[in-house]
Amino acid sequence: MSPEFTLSCPLPLDASGRVQIGHGGGGRLTRDLIERIFAPAFGSRADTDAAVLALGGGQLAMTTDSFVVQPLFFPGGDIGSLAVHGTVNDLAMAGARPLALAAAFILEEGLPLETVARVAASMAEAARRCGVRILTGDTKVVERGRGDGLFITTTGVGALVAPAPLEPSRVEAGDALLVSGDIARHGIAVMASREGLEFESRIESDSAPIHEEVMTLIGEGVELHCLRDCTRGGLATALIEIAGAAQMDFQVDEQQIAVRGDVRAACELLGFDPLYVANEGRFAAIVSAGCAERALEILRRNRPEAAIIGTVLGRGSGRLTAKGPLGAVRVLDLLSGEQLPRIC
Amino acid sequence: MSPEFTLSCPLPLDASGRVQIGHGGGGRLTRDLIERIFAPAFGSRADTDAAVLALGGGQLAMTTDSFVVQPLFFPGGDIGSLAVHGTVNDLAMAGARPLALAAAFILEEGLPLETVARVAASMAEAARRCGVRILTGDTKVVERGRGDGLFITTTGVGALVAPAPLEPSRVEAGDALLVSGDIARHGIAVMASREGLEFESRIESDSAPIHEEVMTLIGEGVELHCLRDCTRGGLATALIEIAGAAQMDFQVDEQQIAVRGDVRAACELLGFDPLYVANEGRFAAIVSAGCAERALEILRRNRPEAAIIGTVLGRGSGRLTAKGPLGAVRVLDLLSGEQLPRIC
Repeated sequence: MSPEFTLSCPLPLDASGRVQIGHGGGGRLTRDLIERIFAPAFGSRADTDAAVLALGGGQLAMTTDSFVVQPLFFPGGDIGSLAVHGTVNDLAMAGARPLALAAAFILEEGLPLETVARVAASMAEAARRCGVRILTGDTKVVERGRGDGLFITTTGVGALVAPAPLEPSRVEAGDALLVSGDIARHGIAVMASREGLEFESRIESDSAPIHEEVMTLIGEGVELHCLRDCTRGGLATALIEIAGAAQMDFQVDEQQIAVRGDVRAACELLGFDPLYVANEGRFAAIVSAGCAERALEILRRNRPEAAIIGTVLGRGSGRLTAKGPLGAVRVLDLLSGEQLPRIC
Repeated sequence: MSPEFTLSCPLPLDASGRVQIGHGGGGRLTRDLIERIFAPAFGSRADTDAAVLALGGGQLAMTTDSFVVQPLFFPGGDIGSLAVHGTVNDLAMAGARPLALAAAFILEEGLPLETVARVAASMAEAARRCGVRILTGDTKVVERGRGDGLFITTTGVGALVAPAPLEPSRVEAGDALLVSGDIARHGIAVMASREGLEFESRIESDSAPIHEEVMTLIGEGVELHCLRDCTRGGLATALIEIAGAAQMDFQVDEQQIAVRGDVRAACELLGFDPLYVANEGRFAAIVSAGCAERALEILRRNRPEAAIIGTVLGRGSGRLTAKGPLGAVRVLDLLSGEQLPRIC
């Protein structure tokens, strides 16, 4: 520690002064950590998942994510394909066409080498399907009991193709809110797999790349204002973050949001609100009112459950409200920690 | 696991079939893992630390590294500054000017938040000194006992400025081998700090950025053929890897390689060969014979211990030999695992 070091910011409001599981949950504690420690230290923005870098004539988007999901293999995916999809999707959310990935592995002593090979093969297959190359990598090993099998950090670079930045400041009153499919499958699939829960039907993660849909929206001239993938914290957290950054109030109509019957039943059983359950192949799109129907038609080519789910009411405190089936309106706020730890 | 999955390669020659600490040591086991699992799966190269991507008119270099060093703070540095220097240096070794970094954190539940803030501040300061921005990041949290305080994965992108690729295939018979300073300080500093060893003098890590020296070498027209930073596995491993990839035999004169007296004494005491001990601010340069003196003069502006340490003998099996003070020649080979685990 250099002698001139001083904390430039108050520590997060956390009585223990220590990292809690909730700091990784994508909710209020995660935001605290970013806003009070990382963003001030690095002078970087806290409101997007990918950064943009001018390079030569073009613009490059860059994003990074560590994956610590447990179990490593779950219905509909595994840590390897998830790491590829998550990174490709973060690039797409910035309006960038994914070009290349880097993959860094932290292995725990004693992990079967066959597991490493299975995960590597899954990553390679996912990358092939996404049309990106895994260009470079790294491997570190930690002693037994100092890791948890396998962690992967993937970093992606992409070429910006959106005609204007996709960010909260571009959101306008009257914009339409869309979601690209049914929600809450990934979190429930991972949780069921981890806890050994069995439901009547097998719930698979929605883990999938979404960049082709985004490229089509851009290519067909839909006026996109902001995109956000609905990962940790689910659809609600994605919308709350954008609403807060934009200082615009949003309202969604819960009846328009598709949740599969078995997923809804599992959420009820487990006490989860599907609006906050993680997805890994769904995104929220905020588009100009005039483009809403065209955007919907494009999204429905891939998933008929895609829907226009609400509107941007106008300037305000950045509040998200949800209208229920009986017309009652409730306020949706950031969860403090997480409903489901380590789902990505 | 998809049903069509089959291992496309034999597993590493490891009787246990499990990850060992040595798989992260930078030696033969690490090479096995890369050559037999990662490189075939990803179709990527195993012989450089950074990959190059054509983008628009220019060429972009990309590199990634996870840092798992213990302890987090050591004489001369900490995991934060190390993560920045390591990534900036890998870009420089590809002949690229570092532009931007991404940083992903895996935190263990219970870690003091003040530690996170200290590490973030150290990273920010190191990045400022290197002239790069930390553009984007990620935070995950794992339960107590499933991590080890703090892991950081840094990924860097840079603009290629070397007039030709710096890679083993460009090494020619007669080329000069240089090293940019005294060696073996980082490994000994970390080990002493971890084990609570005290020497007469305090040995500090050499952790530092080396891109300015590389940019000067390029800017002043030195004909560089290949560069390699002497991290895990030290100077010997860096040269063995290049010799092997180039299929050229190298010879170094041990008397030309600077090792500080206190570092040499510590190595003798601990039974380490300084040629294999990690550095984090030193690199080996292979330059055309005619440029050797100019390269030396440039390197000595920064560190008077920089030296011309040997030559490329010619085409062969890719063997590195070292001539000792009495004229005897010994063969240097890759270590199986590591001398010093978790030094980066």
